[in-house]
Amino acid sequence: MTQIQIGSKLVYEVRQPTIFLLKITAATTPHQVVSNETLTFDPAINVENCQIGFDGNRLQRMVVQPCQMSITYQATVDLTSEIEQPSNVSESQASQMPPEVLTYMNPSRYCESDVLAKFAFEEFGQLSPGFGRVQAICDWVNSHLEYVPGTTTATTTASDVLLQRTGVCRDYAHLAISLCRGVGIPTRYVSGYAVNLQPPDYHGFIEAFLDGHWYLFDPTRLASTLGLVRIGVGRDAADVAFCTLTGSAAMLEKNVWAKSSDGGLPSVPDPAVSTA
Amino acid sequence: MTQIQIGSKLVYEVRQPTIFLLKITAATTPHQVVSNETLTFDPAINVENCQIGFDGNRLQRMVVQPCQMSITYQATVDLTSEIEQPSNVSESQASQMPPEVLTYMNPSRYCESDVLAKFAFEEFGQLSPGFGRVQAICDWVNSHLEYVPGTTTATTTASDVLLQRTGVCRDYAHLAISLCRGVGIPTRYVSGYAVNLQPPDYHGFIEAFLDGHWYLFDPTRLASTLGLVRIGVGRDAADVAFCTLTGSAAMLEKNVWAKSSDGGLPSVPDPAVSTA
Amino acid sequence: MTQIQIGSKLVYEVRQPTIFLLKITAATTPHQVVSNETLTFDPAINVENCQIGFDGNRLQRMVVQPCQMSITYQATVDLTSEIEQPSNVSESQASQMPPEVLTYMNPSRYCESDVLAKFAFEEFGQLSPGFGRVQAICDWVNSHLEYVPGTTTATTTASDVLLQRTGVCRDYAHLAISLCRGVGIPTRYVSGYAVNLQPPDYHGFIEAFLDGHWYLFDPTRLASTLGLVRIGVGRDAADVAFCTLTGSAAMLEKNVWAKSSDGGLPSVPDPAVSTA
Amino acid sequence: MTQIQIGSKLVYEVRQPTIFLLKITAATTPHQVVSNETLTFDPAINVENCQIGFDGNRLQRMVVQPCQMSITYQATVDLTSEIEQPSNVSESQASQMPPEVLTYMNPSRYCESDVLAKFAFEEFGQLSPGFGRVQAICDWVNSHLEYVPGTTTATTTASDVLLQRTGVCRDYAHLAISLCRGVGIPTRYVSGYAVNLQPPDYHGFIEAFLDGHWYLFDPTRLASTLGLVRIGVGRDAADVAFCTLTGSAAMLEKNVWAKSSDGGLPSVPDPAVSTA
Repeated sequence: MTQIQIGSKLVYEVRQPTIFLLKITAATTPHQVVSNETLTFDPAINVENCQIGFDGNRLQRMVVQPCQMSITYQATVDLTSEIEQPSNVSESQASQMPPEVLTYMNPSRYCESDVLAKFAFEEFGQLSPGFGRVQAICDWVNSHLEYVPGTTTATTTASDVLLQRTGVCRDYAHLAISLCRGVGIPTRYVSGYAVNLQPPDYHGFIEAFLDGHWYLFDPTRLASTLGLVRIGVGRDAADVAFCTLTGSAAMLEKNVWAKSSDGGLPSVPDPAVSTA
Repeated sequence: MTQIQIGSKLVYEVRQPTIFLLKITAATTPHQVVSNETLTFDPAINVENCQIGFDGNRLQRMVVQPCQMSITYQATVDLTSEIEQPSNVSESQASQMPPEVLTYMNPSRYCESDVLAKFAFEEFGQLSPGFGRVQAICDWVNSHLEYVPGTTTATTTASDVLLQRTGVCRDYAHLAISLCRGVGIPTRYVSGYAVNLQPPDYHGFIEAFLDGHWYLFDPTRLASTLGLVRIGVGRDAADVAFCTLTGSAAMLEKNVWAKSSDGGLPSVPDPAVSTA
Repeated sequence: MTQIQIGSKLVYEVRQPTIFLLKITAATTPHQVVSNETLTFDPAINVENCQIGFDGNRLQRMVVQPCQMSITYQATVDLTSEIEQPSNVSESQASQMPPEVLTYMNPSRYCESDVLAKFAFEEFGQLSPGFGRVQAICDWVNSHLEYVPGTTTATTTASDVLLQRTGVCRDYAHLAISLCRGVGIPTRYVSGYAVNLQPPDYHGFIEAFLDGHWYLFDPTRLASTLGLVRIGVGRDAADVAFCTLTGSAAMLEKNVWAKSSDGGLPSVPDPAVSTA
Repeated sequence: MTQIQIGSKLVYEVRQPTIFLLKITAATTPHQVVSNETLTFDPAINVENCQIGFDGNRLQRMVVQPCQMSITYQATVDLTSEIEQPSNVSESQASQMPPEVLTYMNPSRYCESDVLAKFAFEEFGQLSPGFGRVQAICDWVNSHLEYVPGTTTATTTASDVLLQRTGVCRDYAHLAISLCRGVGIPTRYVSGYAVNLQPPDYHGFIEAFLDGHWYLFDPTRLASTLGLVRIGVGRDAADVAFCTLTGSAAMLEKNVWAKSSDGGLPSVPDPAVSTA
């Protein structure tokens, strides 16, 4: 078990009455237990807590009147990751997958796996099915992209990234997801907190459905999969934006942190990690 | 109540063992009751029936060995549409919508509402909120597009359609969905059967969330919303393809039909119709 | 006649031997006479002066060794613009245009007039041919776009701009060019200096072929067409980048200026101005 | 010397007065001599012959009234190709190229070499400069694309082709051009006739500027570079469409032929061929 302290502080200048949809709180799943959780708003405000779907995604919704609004979240998260030998993790057959998993084979806004299927098949179609194939895709993405903040925007897609070869965590994730779907592996986007991420921020990574479980991968290699705390999952970043605003507000401050309680993460070389 | 006889026949030349995912059977919802339903396969085969999500979407999955496979579906559907005066149907506030509806505000594969938001806001942002605004968007789509089969492909998106100004039902739906989302109205894609559709085929139309209900619109104006039988709903056509194949098979035949039992549809001029 | 003092200073940190292609010097045309011209390099360097094509475009080419390189250009330009009553300027027939003009009807890198032809025809196809139609296109572009630096990149095209509705001078020009070509008017991109441009910079505007002449338009409305000094013309910005580098160099400074010698420009309300 | 008989017959149903721009006649260059040339129109009509630019491109322009119009072209072409040992052909330095060649380094409508530069550099940046590098790019294009008519349209670009991996001669050419420009080699599109092309049609291939000359390559490998007869050159297919119509006309027939007079082409294994 790994215990992780997470938190984030957001400050907004709200200029008009504005609807906030927040997705910053840790999900509760069989492998991720959240305790000592506080979410405070200054000034105080009525907040609606919503559960979305069945994967633990949560959402806070509120209408904020003009003011300077500080939002502070803190929690302790106990992770009991399932760890497997990568070589033991095979792929699932499309004829055997749970039906609700099939939706993660479909193309989505930022992951045009339909367009990239030929490319994916040509590059990765001949590899042995299993954990190693997803790892090979993530390695390819990691070695062919350069991590350069500011080179992509909120509308950049996996195809764009494949051609321009630069991006940030969200772009790495979108390209890896598209290539996995392109060879028939259901794959989804995970937003979360990552221990020791530099520079600190919310993180975006991926989860591939292999051998009946969802396994974590970080195509950026900026964080250990043993220190990833889930906020939510979706088809791509469109589903798990940390804050969606309807109205007018400017973000003045964003601080995000995640620390392992015992100062480090278990040292397991390249394990297959599942927490969903 | 309207009673509709629907059905379709598909014939495939299957060349290798192929996984079929079929989405051709009518959904069961509080307003759509399905009876006398038969789904036959010739040659006979084991088929898995799956329920997907909570909107009535169904899926049949089977692995077909090389053969010529005929799939015939027939059902009687009783529609008890809720009919409202359009002028009574207002828009819902994002602060009040059920959380599960919010996902239909997100951009999706073929509906880049993020890219089209400025266009949508400029053209339709000043219109009075409500049923009439969605109707205005559908009218705009209808009058600015030309219905020309063969001008779009499986990867054509709403942005493409907005520029090229031609397409088929799926393209009309994607553009209308994107523009609605662009002005803040949750909107989704509906696949189904349509009474008297010419030429007969599966149909694609849309549903906008207004005043606490999902209301039907057909941007192509090729069918009455009182004669639309739902197969499934999704973010866009990526979610409700009538047949997804993994393997190798060629479609040899497709016949689709939908007839109102009493020979016609209730004549209600431009009503607001809800069946979900 | 209008006399204009123009100039610009560029400073580069050159890190490796780098080939520079400069396009910053004023063109010489029958209506634009350049005098007192100096182009100085500090440190001094061998520079090759090239004439490109037959429209007055010039190019300086040099190989710069690692150093800090200052490039200063100054010139006096006498403009003898041809000024017409807009209402007297009709369109040319494609059957009558000089053959070398026809190339400016073709789509180009940033001006996908083939994709935008339907849109252009629908919006502007019914307007009376002539200067007024190009003016209407420029007005449409001006009123539908918002001038926001940083919202577009070097690969942004007219289609992107039409959808996202923001951009800078280059983007305004590309969209206006595409819409003009879309209704059959040869149109090209002009790079240059503009009197009183705020903030000062190189400017991008357009030239449409009407009634046997090239007429100037500035879709941004940031500068008077009577104070535009031509550097070069091309199909779009790809042809007239002010500096193309092969090697490694970073721009440290860019200053651009253009002043009318007698302090102002002739006050002619919305004239049709031709200098090519 | 190779003597080639070329020709083509086009038949149009002209429904309204229509402007035709034809680009089907062989260019005259120092290495391509055209004789016994006939271009006949049935019914007879006034045709304007235009020379475009300085590369031998020609254009016929005429206004056709409603009728059924047959256009027949025939000519004898003597090719005196310059043939080099590929290993003797190096690349030119951008600092040394003739200025008019530099324009073929710019991105163009269907060849977004700016977008593809990173990809090109990564795949081909480390290869030895020279004829062999262009050959390697053409080989890559040939082996990664599948020749499938009907999978691309008039607006398909090199980026699209790189992702979808299918296309026809024009698409092969656009991708090869973009990749060459991406590594700094001026490259252009050539339209023409090709001996023994199957199925017979106008052909699209490319020319790269190496060692002071333009060398021919056919990325489709459907024709020998020794049997290519040039119609025209341009930045991409946008510049050399065989027929551009303004008005309304439908093509009823297209026949194209090209035969080597002595029944075959000189057998030179993979030579470096220059005719411009």
